Amino acid sequence: MSTPEQSTSEVNKAIPNGIAVPDFDLPFPDKSEIITSNLLKLIDLTPNERHKSIFKNLVTHIHQFINETSITTEEWMNTVQFLTRVGQTCSPIRQEFILLSDVLGISALVDSLNNPPVQGATESSVLGPFFTEDAPDVEQGDSIASEGSGQYMYVEGTIKSIHGDPIENAVIETWETNDHGFYDVQYKDREKADCRGRLRTGKDGKYGYRAVVPIAYPIPGDGPVGELLIATGRHNMRPNHLHLMVEAPGYRKLVTSLYPKGDDFLQSDAVFGVKKSLVVDLEDVNDDAEARRRGFPKGGSFKLLHFDVTLVPEVEAEKAREEFAQLRSKNAPA
Amino acid sequence: MSTPEQSTSEVNKAIPNGIAVPDFDLPFPDKSEIITSNLLKLIDLTPNERHKSIFKNLVTHIHQFINETSITTEEWMNTVQFLTRVGQTCSPIRQEFILLSDVLGISALVDSLNNPPVQGATESSVLGPFFTEDAPDVEQGDSIASEGSGQYMYVEGTIKSIHGDPIENAVIETWETNDHGFYDVQYKDREKADCRGRLRTGKDGKYGYRAVVPIAYPIPGDGPVGELLIATGRHNMRPNHLHLMVEAPGYRKLVTSLYPKGDDFLQSDAVFGVKKSLVVDLEDVNDDAEARRRGFPKGGSFKLLHFDVTLVPEVEAEKAREEFAQLRSKNAPA
Repeated sequence: MSTPEQSTSEVNKAIPNGIAVPDFDLPFPDKSEIITSNLLKLIDLTPNERHKSIFKNLVTHIHQFINETSITTEEWMNTVQFLTRVGQTCSPIRQEFILLSDVLGISALVDSLNNPPVQGATESSVLGPFFTEDAPDVEQGDSIASEGSGQYMYVEGTIKSIHGDPIENAVIETWETNDHGFYDVQYKDREKADCRGRLRTGKDGKYGYRAVVPIAYPIPGDGPVGELLIATGRHNMRPNHLHLMVEAPGYRKLVTSLYPKGDDFLQSDAVFGVKKSLVVDLEDVNDDAEARRRGFPKGGSFKLLHFDVTLVPEVEAEKAREEFAQLRSKNAPA
Repeated sequence: MSTPEQSTSEVNKAIPNGIAVPDFDLPFPDKSEIITSNLLKLIDLTPNERHKSIFKNLVTHIHQFINETSITTEEWMNTVQFLTRVGQTCSPIRQEFILLSDVLGISALVDSLNNPPVQGATESSVLGPFFTEDAPDVEQGDSIASEGSGQYMYVEGTIKSIHGDPIENAVIETWETNDHGFYDVQYKDREKADCRGRLRTGKDGKYGYRAVVPIAYPIPGDGPVGELLIATGRHNMRPNHLHLMVEAPGYRKLVTSLYPKGDDFLQSDAVFGVKKSLVVDLEDVNDDAEARRRGFPKGGSFKLLHFDVTLVPEVEAEKAREEFAQLRSKNAPA
């Protein structure tokens, strides 16, 4: 099998990457702690300083985890198999690793650290996997939902700066489930966007559009992340919510969601997305004339969601993020 | 899109798992530390105590990593994409997550903790991905390598207990690269096993077989793990080695490798497998008669590898593992 003809038929390419042997001393890893210290010495070779510091912190924590739990060979192999299945469950329309990050609170934590609270500003929430680029442009008062998608809801408010000024030309992307608790992209036969839209504020910063009351729904439970939730005794529900993404020149982009009061899953959201300031009242309106005036084609009742969105100027948002990061690194163990 | 006919066409199954909302208080995660504490409270629901303690330790470390490095949203998304690619590089003949575990020293660490040193016993080394179940049975003195696979090497020694007694009927599985640095399974046109074999000791515990001198080789560099090594300035080479897996009734199974002295990569093995006690001398033998006596068909020179393997009785091995785990958990931060 070592003849030249055969040696061209390798299955797994395996080519030396040409990097030299390190010129510093690496003792034989005869004790477990030498494995860790050798690895940390090697990571010092990383040319990018930020990568170096991230890798060092990460492997230190992973090795501590292995040490502190005395993980068995079988448990580690099960972990490797689990992560492999998470990767293999990913497809162009499904991201199981983001789902894992979501249910482990990592997505919410990363969001929280990158968008620290600024006095008076609307708080952020997790983006989730259902944003698409193809939302149709809608005018003020238009509906983002096709007729029959659910119970009527009118959404309105003002986009303003934390300093009080209304913001003109802010772009609002908004998306939600229909009354089955599904996003349009979850339908195989989706032909065009539904229950999503894009609109702009005028001079007064005001926005208003017709939508439907969103429905609480389960995150995908048929993959390894679903199994993890069951094994850990957790439900896989998200409370109902309306997504909003708001951008305006000079302001920090806001990704958030509004969560109607009264949902059973508000305080146990499977992905840790709900902040108290994002829980909203839906007002009952029962008035035929008002329903017509708002553009609803049928009936005499709808829900009214009024929410003012407050954005942070980019410079102030970046300052808040840096101060928050410095505070944490000061409190971090050395 | 909400008509009953259409609602049967969902792409992503998403079904409530039926687990109830927790009956304890989970405050809204308005501050980043509440995300972590809520998650830990939820993990308390895990019915399996061992899983509960592993998950708690793991998420604590992951959240600390996120906090201490103030990872940005973009950096986290890059990490998610990296892990996804690792999962998607896995196939029936390639396990990229094990490779990641290997280059991060995790496989060596898990091996080290599960097989703590016992006075006088042969130390363990990483299994690696190239073991197969189909090694042919060979008799004492037979060759595990087809003619032409490399430079002749004779491997011999005694399998004994740490208490000195030779072990009869010990089963030795052994595998290695050919002189191109490839294992047989790396060839697409592999028809049968080569450079691997299985043999048993007799009453005297002795073993001996013909093989070839193994060759240093790179671990696969064309996937995400290969890119990680390049980004961190590390070569992807393993020093040359001969795998041995030894089992005997009543003794702890030993998975190890022997590493010939003089290899350039001995002290910077990409997967942290080499322990000092596993570095061996290859003796030069230049003697036509001796070569014939050992069964080599041609020439008058070969390498001689003499290594006595010492096994630990199962009971003593388990005791050592438990003591080692207790010692570490005592030293672990609370």
